[in-house]
This record gives sequence, C-alpha cells and structure tokens, in this order.
Amino acid sequence: MNRLLQQIEFIKEIDKLKYILRKTKLINSDRQENDAEHSWHLALMTLILSEHSNVPINIIKTVKMVLIHDLVEIDAGDTFLYDSLKSHDNTEEEAKAAQRIFGILPKDQAIELTTLWLEFEKGDTPEAKFARTMDRLEPLLQNFSNNGGTWAEYDIPYQKVFDKKKVIANGSIGIWKYAEHLLEEAVAQGILRKE
Amino acid sequence: MNRLLQQIEFIKEIDKLKYILRKTKLINSDRQENDAEHSWHLALMTLILSEHSNVPINIIKTVKMVLIHDLVEIDAGDTFLYDSLKSHDNTEEEAKAAQRIFGILPKDQAIELTTLWLEFEKGDTPEAKFARTMDRLEPLLQNFSNNGGTWAEYDIPYQKVFDKKKVIANGSIGIWKYAEHLLEEAVAQGILRKE
Repeated sequence: MNRLLQQIEFIKEIDKLKYILRKTKLINSDRQENDAEHSWHLALMTLILSEHSNVPINIIKTVKMVLIHDLVEIDAGDTFLYDSLKSHDNTEEEAKAAQRIFGILPKDQAIELTTLWLEFEKGDTPEAKFARTMDRLEPLLQNFSNNGGTWAEYDIPYQKVFDKKKVIANGSIGIWKYAEHLLEEAVAQGILRKE
Repeated sequence: MNRLLQQIEFIKEIDKLKYILRKTKLINSDRQENDAEHSWHLALMTLILSEHSNVPINIIKTVKMVLIHDLVEIDAGDTFLYDSLKSHDNTEEEAKAAQRIFGILPKDQAIELTTLWLEFEKGDTPEAKFARTMDRLEPLLQNFSNNGGTWAEYDIPYQKVFDKKKVIANGSIGIWKYAEHLLEEAVAQGILRKE
C-alpha cells in the first residue's frame, strides 16, 4: 500500500476523536466538549500564548503535540482529571491504542507521532510542559464560565483543583499567576468550595 | 488591559466556533461536523500530508492558516460550497467578522491573523493553495463514506463536484489524482450522479 493511502486511512480513522466526550462543558454552556474541539482549541491557544512560556519553545512541535495528545482516547476513552480510581498516567490501554492508531501511518510518521505523544505524557521537555499548561488552562476557563462546572458537579474542593492546576506554572509562570487569580475569584464567587 | 488578558478574551470568544455547523456529516455518520472539529482535522491532515505539496511549504504557517480559516464564521455563518446564491468568496460580512474577532487580540497578533486569513481567502501562495487542498479533501472523504452525503442530499451532479474539487490539484497533484479516482468510484457506486 502506498504512503498516501496509509495516510488517508489514518485521516479517516481519527475522525472518531470527534465522538470522544470530555466531562468539561463549553464556555457558558451545557454541552460537553469533544476531544477534537478541545485539541483545536489547545493548538490555537499555543499559537497565541507561546510568548508566555518560561523558556523558548519549538512552536510547531508543541502544536503537533496538542493536536495528537488525545488520539489514544479513541480506543481508551477520556479520563477525568479528578478521577481518583483511574490514573491519568500513561496506561497499558493507552499504549495499545497508540500502537494501533499511529500504526496506521507509514512507519516514519508512526514513530514520530508515538514519540511525540510519549513526550507529552512524560511532560519533561519545555514543549510538553507548555502543552500541559494549555491542557490545564482551557477547562479552567470553561468551569469558571459555568458556575464552577465540573468542580461543582463532582464537588471538587479548591485545594484539589489547585494541586492539579499548579503544573500550569511549569510551562508559564505568567499564565499560572492568572490561573491562580481565577481560582481565588471562583472561591470568592462561591463557585469553588474552600474547605 | 495587558496582553495576556486580551489573549484570554480571544481564547474564550473563539469557543463559539464549536457551535458553527457545516453541511457535511462526519465519516459514516448522521451527525453534522462543526467548524472547530473541521479545523482540527485540517491541521492534522496538513502535518501528515505536507510531503505531497507541489512545492515546499512553510508548515507552521499552513497549520495556523487552517486553524483560523473559519473563525469569521462565528459571526458570518458557514457558507455551503455548492450554494449558488451566496458566494463563498470574501464577503463584507466576513471582513467585518475578521475585524471584530481578530481585533480582540493585541494589535500585532490581530494583524498577523487577519493577514493570514486574507492570504487563505485569496488562495495564491503555496501555503494558501495547500490549505485549500485540505479544505476540499476532508468533505470529499466524508461524503464518500456517507453514500454521497451532501452530493446526494442536495442533488449535486458529478461535473459540479469535479469543478469545485479540481482546485485540490493547485496544492497537490498527487492528492488530486487520489481525489479524482474517488469521484470516479463514487459515480461507479451510484452515489454521485453523472449527467
């Protein structure tokens, strides 16, 4: 099978990401966000906000990373950030999904995207740190606009939200300052419970 | 207002792209695609398929272009490719939308994205040509998977589809060969009417 046909197969397969629903709802909305919309938003956020990164980042690499970071959820499903039973870390199920989905591509591209996904999951490089900053920031804006959104819905207290969100600082101190302020504001408005 | 706050305002505003529905439906599906999902798909397609461009392209520029190409539709709405009453060209309504939406950003970024959007609309540069190739290819894959999709639904004949799709060749002769073959196959399967 030639390269183009393999690439087209992959392009058709990833259409399924549009059905994977997240817990978080859109801004001022009751409608759950899906992973494809979420990934689009993170990509554009990366382009707009990269100047706030703590260290210079390779922008195209970061954009690629956020565009593909949830593709494994086509097979493995979305894991809720505050799920206490299921770890958000790189599970066996996700590793299998990566092998199957990226494996549809020509070998060089399969290796490139798998490597990039693992780098995102590990979260050690400047690009992975900034990508994770974007991934944590978007639902924060959404929950704030929805009277607490999933924080209220699943009764997540301030400290737990704070602990999960503080990794934003690893990618951008400036954005974390803004996020911290937003969490305080959420508490002040009574839409996030401080114990 | 500082830069970050302006950027966050823009990021919240563009969430609305997730509500703008296209006529085309997802692969093997009855569910209409929205502009945010569509833009995500084109961005990833650009990354995967750029090697097939007729001439070398600046990949990050092309990805940016497809990520933002439909933002004006937040105000102006989606225009159906085969709409005979409304032109798909850069309308006054879209120009106003660009001014409002990109205008939320700090001035340098507003100028950058407006310029990029106009370049896409004009379609003259290698990046704009390739972006338009992606924009024409995705619904072709979707319609083919849906027994003709919007071609059948709106009774669009082969020649009209062919005329709209042949601009794919401006970005990639290789992808156009594949697309042409798919259109012939659609006729052979009786899901696209040849007069």
